[in-house]
Amino acid sequence: MNNTFGTHVALTLFGESHGPEIGCVIDGLRPGLRVDEDHIAHRLVLRRPAGAISTARVEPDPFHIVSGVWQGRTTGTPLCILIPNRDVKSGDYVNLKTIPRPGHADYTGAVKYKGFADPRGGGHFSGRLTAPLVAAGAIFLAALAERGVHIGTHAARCAGIADRPFGDLAADLEALDRAPFPVLDPERGEAMRAAVLAAAAAGDSAGGVLETAVTGLPAGLGAPWFDTVEGLLAHALFSIPAVKGVEFGDGFALADMRGSEANDCFRLEPDAAAPSAPRGRVVTETNHNGGVNGGLTNGMPLIFRTAIKPTSSIAAPQRTLNLATGEQTELRIAGRHDPCIVPRARAVQDAVTAHVVLDLLETP
Amino acid sequence: MNNTFGTHVALTLFGESHGPEIGCVIDGLRPGLRVDEDHIAHRLVLRRPAGAISTARVEPDPFHIVSGVWQGRTTGTPLCILIPNRDVKSGDYVNLKTIPRPGHADYTGAVKYKGFADPRGGGHFSGRLTAPLVAAGAIFLAALAERGVHIGTHAARCAGIADRPFGDLAADLEALDRAPFPVLDPERGEAMRAAVLAAAAAGDSAGGVLETAVTGLPAGLGAPWFDTVEGLLAHALFSIPAVKGVEFGDGFALADMRGSEANDCFRLEPDAAAPSAPRGRVVTETNHNGGVNGGLTNGMPLIFRTAIKPTSSIAAPQRTLNLATGEQTELRIAGRHDPCIVPRARAVQDAVTAHVVLDLLETP
Amino acid sequence: MNNTFGTHVALTLFGESHGPEIGCVIDGLRPGLRVDEDHIAHRLVLRRPAGAISTARVEPDPFHIVSGVWQGRTTGTPLCILIPNRDVKSGDYVNLKTIPRPGHADYTGAVKYKGFADPRGGGHFSGRLTAPLVAAGAIFLAALAERGVHIGTHAARCAGIADRPFGDLAADLEALDRAPFPVLDPERGEAMRAAVLAAAAAGDSAGGVLETAVTGLPAGLGAPWFDTVEGLLAHALFSIPAVKGVEFGDGFALADMRGSEANDCFRLEPDAAAPSAPRGRVVTETNHNGGVNGGLTNGMPLIFRTAIKPTSSIAAPQRTLNLATGEQTELRIAGRHDPCIVPRARAVQDAVTAHVVLDLLETP
Amino acid sequence: MNNTFGTHVALTLFGESHGPEIGCVIDGLRPGLRVDEDHIAHRLVLRRPAGAISTARVEPDPFHIVSGVWQGRTTGTPLCILIPNRDVKSGDYVNLKTIPRPGHADYTGAVKYKGFADPRGGGHFSGRLTAPLVAAGAIFLAALAERGVHIGTHAARCAGIADRPFGDLAADLEALDRAPFPVLDPERGEAMRAAVLAAAAAGDSAGGVLETAVTGLPAGLGAPWFDTVEGLLAHALFSIPAVKGVEFGDGFALADMRGSEANDCFRLEPDAAAPSAPRGRVVTETNHNGGVNGGLTNGMPLIFRTAIKPTSSIAAPQRTLNLATGEQTELRIAGRHDPCIVPRARAVQDAVTAHVVLDLLETP
Repeated sequence: MNNTFGTHVALTLFGESHGPEIGCVIDGLRPGLRVDEDHIAHRLVLRRPAGAISTARVEPDPFHIVSGVWQGRTTGTPLCILIPNRDVKSGDYVNLKTIPRPGHADYTGAVKYKGFADPRGGGHFSGRLTAPLVAAGAIFLAALAERGVHIGTHAARCAGIADRPFGDLAADLEALDRAPFPVLDPERGEAMRAAVLAAAAAGDSAGGVLETAVTGLPAGLGAPWFDTVEGLLAHALFSIPAVKGVEFGDGFALADMRGSEANDCFRLEPDAAAPSAPRGRVVTETNHNGGVNGGLTNGMPLIFRTAIKPTSSIAAPQRTLNLATGEQTELRIAGRHDPCIVPRARAVQDAVTAHVVLDLLETP
Repeated sequence: MNNTFGTHVALTLFGESHGPEIGCVIDGLRPGLRVDEDHIAHRLVLRRPAGAISTARVEPDPFHIVSGVWQGRTTGTPLCILIPNRDVKSGDYVNLKTIPRPGHADYTGAVKYKGFADPRGGGHFSGRLTAPLVAAGAIFLAALAERGVHIGTHAARCAGIADRPFGDLAADLEALDRAPFPVLDPERGEAMRAAVLAAAAAGDSAGGVLETAVTGLPAGLGAPWFDTVEGLLAHALFSIPAVKGVEFGDGFALADMRGSEANDCFRLEPDAAAPSAPRGRVVTETNHNGGVNGGLTNGMPLIFRTAIKPTSSIAAPQRTLNLATGEQTELRIAGRHDPCIVPRARAVQDAVTAHVVLDLLETP
Repeated sequence: MNNTFGTHVALTLFGESHGPEIGCVIDGLRPGLRVDEDHIAHRLVLRRPAGAISTARVEPDPFHIVSGVWQGRTTGTPLCILIPNRDVKSGDYVNLKTIPRPGHADYTGAVKYKGFADPRGGGHFSGRLTAPLVAAGAIFLAALAERGVHIGTHAARCAGIADRPFGDLAADLEALDRAPFPVLDPERGEAMRAAVLAAAAAGDSAGGVLETAVTGLPAGLGAPWFDTVEGLLAHALFSIPAVKGVEFGDGFALADMRGSEANDCFRLEPDAAAPSAPRGRVVTETNHNGGVNGGLTNGMPLIFRTAIKPTSSIAAPQRTLNLATGEQTELRIAGRHDPCIVPRARAVQDAVTAHVVLDLLETP
Repeated sequence: MNNTFGTHVALTLFGESHGPEIGCVIDGLRPGLRVDEDHIAHRLVLRRPAGAISTARVEPDPFHIVSGVWQGRTTGTPLCILIPNRDVKSGDYVNLKTIPRPGHADYTGAVKYKGFADPRGGGHFSGRLTAPLVAAGAIFLAALAERGVHIGTHAARCAGIADRPFGDLAADLEALDRAPFPVLDPERGEAMRAAVLAAAAAGDSAGGVLETAVTGLPAGLGAPWFDTVEGLLAHALFSIPAVKGVEFGDGFALADMRGSEANDCFRLEPDAAAPSAPRGRVVTETNHNGGVNGGLTNGMPLIFRTAIKPTSSIAAPQRTLNLATGEQTELRIAGRHDPCIVPRARAVQDAVTAHVVLDLLETP
């Protein structure tokens, strides 16, 4: 089932960019979880275009909970969220069926759906579909917070500028949840914005790297084959439009290390929750493996990064085909386009991560 | 179902490193596919330790087809393959339950399975389980070759040494299938071996990067949410022991590119199979996206890389815990261990890739 | 995933009886299928209360297609249908949480959902949820008709009165699709109505047996283990509220037969589509097995029956518990209740059958 | 995945009747469950031919646990059981591919598997495959017994003779586990044997009804849509060869009842485990609904029946086709065939029931 993900907590996405509504159904939530509409609205705001570096299309993202909530709490039955589409300018996209945009799914989608897909605004492929994902993610994040699990994502790189690395995770994650621009060092954030604006001014776009930390996980989640923690997360993360790579811990840098550098040695840490206990908590001295050994969580923070390619829609002219005539043509993409989705995509990455992590925690 | 993967062609793995047999069940193969036991044996040989840089444990890997094959062809019913375990020295592993090896699943597995897992040789977590995966992969590779789809993997990096990049894919993939050491440039292969031996001589281990190419795929396989081609492949690839990152096309390098560099422009190519046809085949001028747009194949070669961390078992002493006493201890891992699994892991990567690709092709 | 059914064509149900809307998401439909809103409306009418023997609650069932249809055809992406709830009188149900109705899910649902489920009108357990099922079924029935597969259900028994058996299936199925009261013999239908009214007048309710025929199926659908045609259909059919039994062909009557009576002998029938062909179509002389041998369709009409228990909501007083106090109490169910759901349930049985059959046809 | 069943505890069947081995893989068992090989052997004995009324083929059913058990307990990783095939006389079956036996899957299997299936002994369709099912079931039954859940099945009818109904379930289930012929009243069992022998003497075969009781289940298992307790059980039960109907509680008899007869009224029962507690256990006065309300267990014993058609293989001549020539022919089935599988099928029904019930209990 392509549009459903999750074993115990299953999320189904539906809708097209220019249809009446988009939405999702979440099945498998425990009954009794508090559902805070303000928190959902807050997470949807983090997904909004962030000032100058994002598209000017206004997305206030009102939402409507259709089912699965009664008196402010989950009922345990499927929770459906609807988000109406508004401010739609379909005229911008009319010829996408014949003149596919490079880097987009116009061509591949036309082949898969045999020409019947709704082409307006990218249809079901649109990044717009991440809005219900983020709304669902807000519910997942709240459910995790009740269990002491916290998630945050920052732009480790954006338009060639690096953020500072994660430090004190408790403080960093709390700050990120409030930060409209997802960086740990605001000055580097300003440099990122400037670099993105420079790309946009050149009719071009920029990419980056999103880094996520998850704290508070117990050891032993996941499986050796095939539902490794890394595999499950990567499966979901590659649904975020523009993600082209996923790495855990030191990731690709591990390829050039030696085992003596890469292994994380075990030690005991006094348990803050029970300081007088003779035995502590098993931790590792380093975290080169990003909190995962043998496909299972080891109790250390889960750390991973995604590679976000630069936005495919650019103002500069590009070569493409007219599929109706077979002739080469030059495409100039008009309309409003975000020159860099990295800042907004962090809200999606948080949501997708929260989904996978909650699903892992619900696995018997 | 943790140990089963695949929607239409489902593979279930079972067994422990030091049990009587390990094996797999493949369900969903079309009836009538030829099953060539010599080809299976050949692929199992590619997974064997390659001379000096691999463990001295001998693995001739005899195998036994239990079901699903009749008169040399698949029946369409579940195909079970058994591989007996031999030459087992369990004494080497007796205290893994109390003294976990850094980088391994000893600790995380003990938590997940509450201390009941078979600890001998890593039990169900052992890389030994990749033998039935490779045997199954041989059947998948043959089924794909019948449909004009070819797969090959080389060590793009190993112990810090780079192979040459893919060139003529038809020739490269054919050469790789015969090459015991998976490089495109044999001289660089020699340098890799030397670098691995140097690491081993220092009581240490090495990692690398495996790069795979898949040719002959039609456009339109995959889905926008959640069963993207990238997501499905990554899900499976992270089951290969030691994989800590997966990237498609230019992967993490895309993060610093601009859209005008990263987009692959469309053009028509005369169709070799129908040279007089007025219309050709839709291709892209470049392949920065690794053959995937919007989560779907675009008809270009599928290209991706995995990061392989250095082997966790090293001869040098490491700090760890005695979980029974809570005391810090020093661990020296005896026994035979492969200082670098990169060369052997390519057979596993081919197998896993073949599984996912065949499953995608069988999706209605 | 509890609320999702189907391997290739997956249906997800959501909503509560007294929530703002109920609905469903269908994933896996082929692109390009015509979607006729009048046909959907017609099938929803067949599910409406049929005059005197049904509840007086008016259910005009307007519906709204949210996604998955573009220019009158399926896009191949998820198709969401919403049906608003109207004319809701929640006051009738307020104390169901403490005083469970015999025969209903009030008690079992309270245990499963730990008291958090929406109790109004039965919440997610309500027969109201069959409205989106029937709407989805209309799309499935149309997709099947394009492939020459036809489905129809009649009340083989209702309130103790038997309908005539199936005869000329082509004519019978066509007549059933137009018949508001699902019988093959209208006189027996009148007798059924009278018997239901007699039960209702006594403050009581009635049940019956629904028999379904499916024509036009090829041989070879299904599987020996575990996705038998019988098993898949039964799995889905037991979701129809009040179904307590499912039998295929002669069903329970086979238990007392001998093999020589129960076996359906094979013969060739001249193929109407190719009358001059030397070879015909393989058929069986009889159809005691209801079109299924070894879990697979054999090309004969698929025939099965469901047992529908009498409506649980009755006007007569019943003994039950006050769960809050633990005291025995007498319950009188007020409100509008259908004294016999058999006539309306046939639309649901058609829909569920169409879903399973389409899913089987889409299996590679 | 056709040959896999179960959401949390997944069972995969493989093998053909005349292949080297048949077997199964169980995935999702909790670690630490005791595995008693004598108990498995006992359950396999209950599936053996019971004296004169069964086939003379000897089936001592040795078995071999390949994986998933360590020091007598489950490891939590996949448990594979192999059962070698012996005493095979393939010659009896050579022409099944061209002359299909009425009532069997020879024709439908040939269509589904395009003529490539192993025809010997029915291949993968053979009732022989129920041996690994019963072996797996022994493990499930033991896991359930540890949790106070007990299962037993009797021949409620066989060859037209009725057993007495269930009475004291604790005593009845205990007796059935020891009884080689599964009846509650041994005299009626003798009458059944005589009736079966009479059918066999006439070159014919007999069927019956198997009735199962499950005690000790908590309320609240199952789901309203689609994974109802009835639907899940029926899905699995129809895999038992020859089952053509499934009914719960009063089943088809409910069709002619009125609601006031069919509803099970609630009352409190003093809790035997806590006799001084002021509040007791919620029970129903009657059990017409077989322990299920709204698709969920209600804490009463789960009661259901299956219709077992008479054995398809009979000695008397039958009409069939020669598929190679298209000519009508007469078939006389030689070889050893069980004139009535009802007594043996009870071991399979227990196993299948135990699987579904354990899976329900493991659902979060």
